[in-house]
Amino acid sequence: MKMQAIILAAGAGTRMKSKLPKVLHKVCGDTMLNHVIDSAFASNVDECIVIVGHGADEVRKTLDPKIKTVLQKEQLGTGHALKMAYDEINNEGTVLILCGDGPLVSEDTIKELIHFHETSNAKATVMSTSLHNPYGYGRIIRTESNELAKIVEEKDANSEQKLVAEVNSGTYCFDASALKKALPLLKNDNAQREYYLPDTLAIIKEAGEKVGVYKIDDFEDIMAVNSRVQLAEVEAIMRKRINEKHMTNGVTLIDPKNTYIDKGVKIGQDTIVYPNVFLSGETVIGEDCVIGYNTKIHNSQIGNGVEIQSSTILDSTVDEDTTIGPYAYLRPNSKIGKRVKIGDFVEVKNSTIDDDSKASHLAYIGDGEVGKNVNIGCGVVFVNYDGKNKHKTVVKDNAFVGSNANLVAPVTIEESAYVASGSTITKNVPQGSLAVERSKQTTIEGWVERKNRGRQ
Amino acid sequence: MKMQAIILAAGAGTRMKSKLPKVLHKVCGDTMLNHVIDSAFASNVDECIVIVGHGADEVRKTLDPKIKTVLQKEQLGTGHALKMAYDEINNEGTVLILCGDGPLVSEDTIKELIHFHETSNAKATVMSTSLHNPYGYGRIIRTESNELAKIVEEKDANSEQKLVAEVNSGTYCFDASALKKALPLLKNDNAQREYYLPDTLAIIKEAGEKVGVYKIDDFEDIMAVNSRVQLAEVEAIMRKRINEKHMTNGVTLIDPKNTYIDKGVKIGQDTIVYPNVFLSGETVIGEDCVIGYNTKIHNSQIGNGVEIQSSTILDSTVDEDTTIGPYAYLRPNSKIGKRVKIGDFVEVKNSTIDDDSKASHLAYIGDGEVGKNVNIGCGVVFVNYDGKNKHKTVVKDNAFVGSNANLVAPVTIEESAYVASGSTITKNVPQGSLAVERSKQTTIEGWVERKNRGRQ
Amino acid sequence: MKMQAIILAAGAGTRMKSKLPKVLHKVCGDTMLNHVIDSAFASNVDECIVIVGHGADEVRKTLDPKIKTVLQKEQLGTGHALKMAYDEINNEGTVLILCGDGPLVSEDTIKELIHFHETSNAKATVMSTSLHNPYGYGRIIRTESNELAKIVEEKDANSEQKLVAEVNSGTYCFDASALKKALPLLKNDNAQREYYLPDTLAIIKEAGEKVGVYKIDDFEDIMAVNSRVQLAEVEAIMRKRINEKHMTNGVTLIDPKNTYIDKGVKIGQDTIVYPNVFLSGETVIGEDCVIGYNTKIHNSQIGNGVEIQSSTILDSTVDEDTTIGPYAYLRPNSKIGKRVKIGDFVEVKNSTIDDDSKASHLAYIGDGEVGKNVNIGCGVVFVNYDGKNKHKTVVKDNAFVGSNANLVAPVTIEESAYVASGSTITKNVPQGSLAVERSKQTTIEGWVERKNRGRQ
Repeated sequence: MKMQAIILAAGAGTRMKSKLPKVLHKVCGDTMLNHVIDSAFASNVDECIVIVGHGADEVRKTLDPKIKTVLQKEQLGTGHALKMAYDEINNEGTVLILCGDGPLVSEDTIKELIHFHETSNAKATVMSTSLHNPYGYGRIIRTESNELAKIVEEKDANSEQKLVAEVNSGTYCFDASALKKALPLLKNDNAQREYYLPDTLAIIKEAGEKVGVYKIDDFEDIMAVNSRVQLAEVEAIMRKRINEKHMTNGVTLIDPKNTYIDKGVKIGQDTIVYPNVFLSGETVIGEDCVIGYNTKIHNSQIGNGVEIQSSTILDSTVDEDTTIGPYAYLRPNSKIGKRVKIGDFVEVKNSTIDDDSKASHLAYIGDGEVGKNVNIGCGVVFVNYDGKNKHKTVVKDNAFVGSNANLVAPVTIEESAYVASGSTITKNVPQGSLAVERSKQTTIEGWVERKNRGRQ
Repeated sequence: MKMQAIILAAGAGTRMKSKLPKVLHKVCGDTMLNHVIDSAFASNVDECIVIVGHGADEVRKTLDPKIKTVLQKEQLGTGHALKMAYDEINNEGTVLILCGDGPLVSEDTIKELIHFHETSNAKATVMSTSLHNPYGYGRIIRTESNELAKIVEEKDANSEQKLVAEVNSGTYCFDASALKKALPLLKNDNAQREYYLPDTLAIIKEAGEKVGVYKIDDFEDIMAVNSRVQLAEVEAIMRKRINEKHMTNGVTLIDPKNTYIDKGVKIGQDTIVYPNVFLSGETVIGEDCVIGYNTKIHNSQIGNGVEIQSSTILDSTVDEDTTIGPYAYLRPNSKIGKRVKIGDFVEVKNSTIDDDSKASHLAYIGDGEVGKNVNIGCGVVFVNYDGKNKHKTVVKDNAFVGSNANLVAPVTIEESAYVASGSTITKNVPQGSLAVERSKQTTIEGWVERKNRGRQ
Repeated sequence: MKMQAIILAAGAGTRMKSKLPKVLHKVCGDTMLNHVIDSAFASNVDECIVIVGHGADEVRKTLDPKIKTVLQKEQLGTGHALKMAYDEINNEGTVLILCGDGPLVSEDTIKELIHFHETSNAKATVMSTSLHNPYGYGRIIRTESNELAKIVEEKDANSEQKLVAEVNSGTYCFDASALKKALPLLKNDNAQREYYLPDTLAIIKEAGEKVGVYKIDDFEDIMAVNSRVQLAEVEAIMRKRINEKHMTNGVTLIDPKNTYIDKGVKIGQDTIVYPNVFLSGETVIGEDCVIGYNTKIHNSQIGNGVEIQSSTILDSTVDEDTTIGPYAYLRPNSKIGKRVKIGDFVEVKNSTIDDDSKASHLAYIGDGEVGKNVNIGCGVVFVNYDGKNKHKTVVKDNAFVGSNANLVAPVTIEESAYVASGSTITKNVPQGSLAVERSKQTTIEGWVERKNRGRQ
């Protein structure tokens, strides 16, 4: 039987004070909504339907095309959202309701909820938890036999009910047919003139069916984000979860509180990650690496035994036993070989650098193809741009490019050739030769005194 | 009726282990004393009088000239401090007493204290709070009818009094005339031979007047700094307050614990600030900016839609939709236009760079005036210093300066002119022309083998 | 009487998921085992014996040669470890047993344990503490007279015993002869077939001797590391301890949570350390320094009044009142004088730079000897490497090296000489002269239009 998840993502999020729809605010590098969708699919949901409203088009653009969306034009309550999706809801099976602004709901929690629901004979199950400060949440009111009596919203709660710590998480499991029977019966005869989803529980109960409560211990799973302060809190919790997973897998994080790793990143055993490191996108890091402090790596593959200090690496690959930085910048499409050294104040862009080569300091390698065992001197520039177009520079194996040289592309430095320091090279340099572009050094004696340029 | 604040700032702060007077230690970028003065003026105090003692001259230098100071040569107690200020105290109205080492006292708390005092019929009001660990503080001893009985210092407290959690904050409101009547009656007949300010409360009570206690819930407001450990604690609390204000206003802080924003900074809605960012001085940041990790911005104006990565910006302006960094350094008096790119390892100093221009990597633009749509190549240096004086370089619209070129100031590159890579330019370059300073490239075949420089 | 410490360091640490033996994992820059050894010697232990097992050779390599090791080939329990060391244990005096994976055990705690033990008439003393969650630890079961009854391991504890919060720290003091009498009597007749060290306590008690319990308040001292999550927790605690010591000594740490200082570092009074700073090895920092954010200093000596911003300094010295950075990189064996400026994107390696000299931006000074009051221009490279060997560059007092110049070593720029911008210098430059290597600047009018290179 198919399992559907319906994710409520239409709300405005006024307290966010944002032009961006609330569910598109990011936590650990992905939108809140995508985190919820990921957890849903991970818990074996077959289909996700997202109810969009505020910023509907913007929200849709961020979704995988396989996700169905339903427009809730006016926001008339959570029950109203479900009514909008009525035609999309299966006629049988289980329907899971999730909140698009609750990105911490985990795969495990959802699975447990579904299991609890499906192994009970309830037609609907609400997930609850206890909060120290339940203010603002709907309270779970139980009968003497500890069954659900009703859910009372904050504004409708009397003083005794307000003391109840157990709250509605906003996450539910429904029997599809029971839900579809209940939805048309929902009324908005309340102060807000809204259709409340919890009212379906009462309707199902009134129909003589069982409604269950699945209470979880860890309130973090149900935290909803309504402000940027909460956004930061949720981010801290997700960061902690991600970091503990890596530590459990055998990665040393010197200070997990200050280490920022997105959900999709993989890190090999015995790699050490220093503080203030940012690993994002689909980054994969090998074993036995040192990722030094102040490093940012996005969407890149880093081989085993690589050491990176205080550098930025974007959409690139770095092979085994290479050292990068400090203060290196690998821009997209850089492919760095094994045992390479990319040193301080070096930028590499859209270039290949083969094994055992070095660019130790203050150089720019752009649109280049650098062979093995090449030495790129300090201050060398691959002059790839002529003001109109970009061109390619090739430096072959065992070549040596002297300091502050310019290689004006398109140009090739052949194998084992040398370029003299300070030379601007516009023509190819043959194998084994030395290319020089330089004048004679002249000395003007006594110049400093004559020109009164003495610096003492 | 005028409202005076008297701020006690004469103490030595021995436990700080510092050459600097205690109240000059900084919290979130400003001295503790200035924070207290700011809160006083914000709560509508008309005049602040600072009692100075230890390091009096140093303290005076840090104060706005409108602040009156009174010298307390010897530190003989808080009451003695007030006695020194006797002639400066108004004859009527309200006198607020604040501690110069309590920088967390907020505008709201002061206003509430004044309101409580002025709407009671008390001639003096002491502000109190309850502490988990009241050790070291004067305890508020109350009568059976919950009025203030007396304040007992730690060293005079009996074992029962030591259990009292309610403590004297050191902050008071006085009716000016009652205070002026009480001060001359203060005695130093105690173990320390000091004049205690709390004794004035007893004197006022004995004169048959009412003395009130204003108890606050949040003990943070009264935290005094006596050590660098406490200094760091107070800094963390102030940082949290500042950061929550920005988040509430619609700014995303990825990790507010590691984001360092001074009190005077303004940030527009939907700007995202990454961790380990330092925003200080009178910095103003626009809307929809990305302030990437490891960025420091001091006293600068940043327009809307700007993206900054891992850079340092001091006393400069950056206009809309410009990107800066990573690893860029804008030194004072840099004016960067719209849609400009200042890339990695680029320093700009005392220069103007107009719209749509680029300096993408490894360049120094000092004392320069760069027009629109200019390309400053990699490794370009504006040679502004001749060893004696600094000179200006002008590069006009649509010009292109090739890599590793030197522009030796004073010099002008006219509109749409080109400077060839590797050229050192000492004479102006006319509009639309190409300037070259370069020799012929020569090739010495077989040099590597002859010189035995093979690198395999 | 001699005092021996026996440190248990043979365990595998399976939950660390590491190729590295557990005790070699580092906390605040040193191995856990070395921290324990340091604390032992600091508390006047005369000799440390380390029981090694897993990765024995690797562990031995990290130890000071004066440390004796004993191999425990098979890990058959803590008692078995002691049995292996039997011949090394003194016949009289006190024997201290410490855990190699408990790096937080402090000198003070060990001293107090020894004092407690030696001033009681016990033949053995176990150190205990109370834990909120004692799960997994051996419980201290006491008699009605509050003496030690026995120690029960988690797996042997009944439900009542499991509620006991007081746990065995794994740290003990023994009378040497009592220990040597007990060890041969140890049996492994338990589920694990292991020899348990706590069983020696029962043996000593059965022999009619007294066994004491020394209970400490601070559980941090006994925290053992069994996973990387715990490793990070222990690192955070040690970091806090180190940082509080510096603050107490008069150093300002803006955010001690994000300041990473190794145990061996010394910092002078009134120095301010900003967040995200890493001070490691035998670094010594003077008074009144500013260590700006994002700075890493390893094994270096920094004089008074130095200001460092966002830089990396390794194995170097920096003299008084010098400024470094932002984005400077001092590689090993750099000796920087007084009032020097090393600016942005400057690398110094194995070089001396004398007082009042400047290298303000984008320069590389490698294998150089720079005199006083020298100006190294922007983009200057000390060309120290010819593709085969490294050579030295000397720049004498008051010299001026123009921008983007190359000094091709070996070469000397004599006193007060000038090198023109853009020159590649291969021959020595005499005192007071100007050296130029440059062609004539030529202008090709109309080139841009003819070549169709207009950039508008």
